[in-house]
Amino acid sequence: MKKIINNPSDFVPEVMEGILLAYKDRVKVLDKDKRILMKSTKTKKGKVGIVTAGGSGHLPVFLGYVGDGMLDGCAVGNVFASPSAQKMTDMIIAANNGAGVLCLYGNYGGDTMNFAMAVENAEFENVKTMEVLVKDDVASRPKEEAAMRRGVAGMVYAFKVAGAAADEMLSLEEVAKVTQEALDHIRTIGIALSPCIVPEAGKATFSIKEDEMEFGMGIHGEPGIEVCTMKKADEIADSILAELLLDMPLKKGDEVSVMVNGLGATPLEEQFIVYRRLHMKLAEMGVTIFIPHIGEFATSMEMAGLSVTIFKLNDQFKKYLRVTASTPFYTNYNK
Amino acid sequence: MKKIINNPSDFVPEVMEGILLAYKDRVKVLDKDKRILMKSTKTKKGKVGIVTAGGSGHLPVFLGYVGDGMLDGCAVGNVFASPSAQKMTDMIIAANNGAGVLCLYGNYGGDTMNFAMAVENAEFENVKTMEVLVKDDVASRPKEEAAMRRGVAGMVYAFKVAGAAADEMLSLEEVAKVTQEALDHIRTIGIALSPCIVPEAGKATFSIKEDEMEFGMGIHGEPGIEVCTMKKADEIADSILAELLLDMPLKKGDEVSVMVNGLGATPLEEQFIVYRRLHMKLAEMGVTIFIPHIGEFATSMEMAGLSVTIFKLNDQFKKYLRVTASTPFYTNYNK
Repeated sequence: MKKIINNPSDFVPEVMEGILLAYKDRVKVLDKDKRILMKSTKTKKGKVGIVTAGGSGHLPVFLGYVGDGMLDGCAVGNVFASPSAQKMTDMIIAANNGAGVLCLYGNYGGDTMNFAMAVENAEFENVKTMEVLVKDDVASRPKEEAAMRRGVAGMVYAFKVAGAAADEMLSLEEVAKVTQEALDHIRTIGIALSPCIVPEAGKATFSIKEDEMEFGMGIHGEPGIEVCTMKKADEIADSILAELLLDMPLKKGDEVSVMVNGLGATPLEEQFIVYRRLHMKLAEMGVTIFIPHIGEFATSMEMAGLSVTIFKLNDQFKKYLRVTASTPFYTNYNK
Repeated sequence: MKKIINNPSDFVPEVMEGILLAYKDRVKVLDKDKRILMKSTKTKKGKVGIVTAGGSGHLPVFLGYVGDGMLDGCAVGNVFASPSAQKMTDMIIAANNGAGVLCLYGNYGGDTMNFAMAVENAEFENVKTMEVLVKDDVASRPKEEAAMRRGVAGMVYAFKVAGAAADEMLSLEEVAKVTQEALDHIRTIGIALSPCIVPEAGKATFSIKEDEMEFGMGIHGEPGIEVCTMKKADEIADSILAELLLDMPLKKGDEVSVMVNGLGATPLEEQFIVYRRLHMKLAEMGVTIFIPHIGEFATSMEMAGLSVTIFKLNDQFKKYLRVTASTPFYTNYNK
């Protein structure tokens, strides 16, 4: 696998510079070393701030969702590594418009530890905060240990809900509550067909045989549920759906949004083949799909594979998905 | 390389079904075998129709740009193969709102031959047509033979310009003229790092050594200008820019749009590293960038590599890039 990079140690700084040059009309950085990305468009006074943080290598996650209708800020770490508590602190303080800040992020050791410190620091500066953790990856732990699951692509739906709720000028407690409610109805599972290469390591994160796939692998190459021989698209879709339904049953009349998320190297064509099967299977059950999301939302650089997220909707969530958001990597303009 | 597919012969039909299920509120098919995709949203009476056609395997190209502000229709072929003249004919007739139809497509043998027949058939049905061919790939032929060049990612800019011009209710002749003028100011070149696999063939389209890249390769694996050892991102960006500027010189004060287009497997991060260098080099020349496009616009399934397109702008083209378009794969909502 070849990478179009310069010095591996310049990978993250150069990605950040590229993004800033491309979208300087919409985002800005707070710090000299360009690790705190903030929305630069107008924000309503008194709107709850929504922030996240995480390692690099997952574009559009995390920073791609900073912008109107979603996140106010994102602290950016090295590849697959958490940013520092100090960067998170500075971001939280900057994202406060007087109504407090929701810290909404994936459940990973480094991020939770650093956010815990950052939240303390921010409270010391009189910024009110609340935390909601994304734990949507059903493959990362069994249902009995759901509180310890990792966060993956489902966080994009959580960003959308939180951003829309904040734009409605709900209070910090209300935004946190509705975001947690959304996450209680979001489940994800992924499959990996090939590894990715962390630039500074220069070698594949794991190996997988030419005729095999890994069911349930995490976006940093965390082990999944099962390594099995490569299956056909419909079988993959059926296995994924079965696993998701086991964790969150659906019944006739339910409405869901479905996200088919390419992990990096998997062509859009293949994502639509999987979406087709999911749509048909859900339709057979009497479940309808509202605003499907198909494409790359949370990647692992050049990893081949995809994840599927199901978000079980109610009228409030539907309204929040529909309302316009416009960030450099997510625009859902609907007439 | 592994593919998430079912039977290879079902690849295109299943992709089409997936796309129709996902976007049935915005697109529809004219035919039972689902090879003519048409916009299903409201179209102004008397607007010039804009259509294209081409082989599958390049999503979002071609059909992804059917929608408000861009294309009215797209005829879809098998992987890397032209659709039939009959499908094109039916599409042209359906896209006519009384003001004629612009056929805007890449310069490939099968497509030009079939469009020639389709245009004749349509004229026979009293539908006025004009043709504009996309020939932006500077690597495909030297400058003296520019009229024989292939069309690649630059066609997305041409779709945007033609769609915006048609929405302004310009005549067929005027839409064709401004689209050709835009194409006269659009140049693309690509590099490939790895091949792709055509589902029915089941093997790589070409081979390339682990330490090599191919400069100027086409999106179907057509030979490029040079096979060379893998270079750093900045060197790649500089070589690409030099080649593009040789073909279309730029001077201080010029404004351009730049598209960095991932061919399939290349991570977004790497595309931003290349964009960063292009932006810096153009800024040094006094050239400014307007609405950059970074992401996957015209792919070759799981091919690794990218292409860079430069579109030299005037005030009219800037207006046409800025105006809103909303298709399943392209939304440029700007407040």
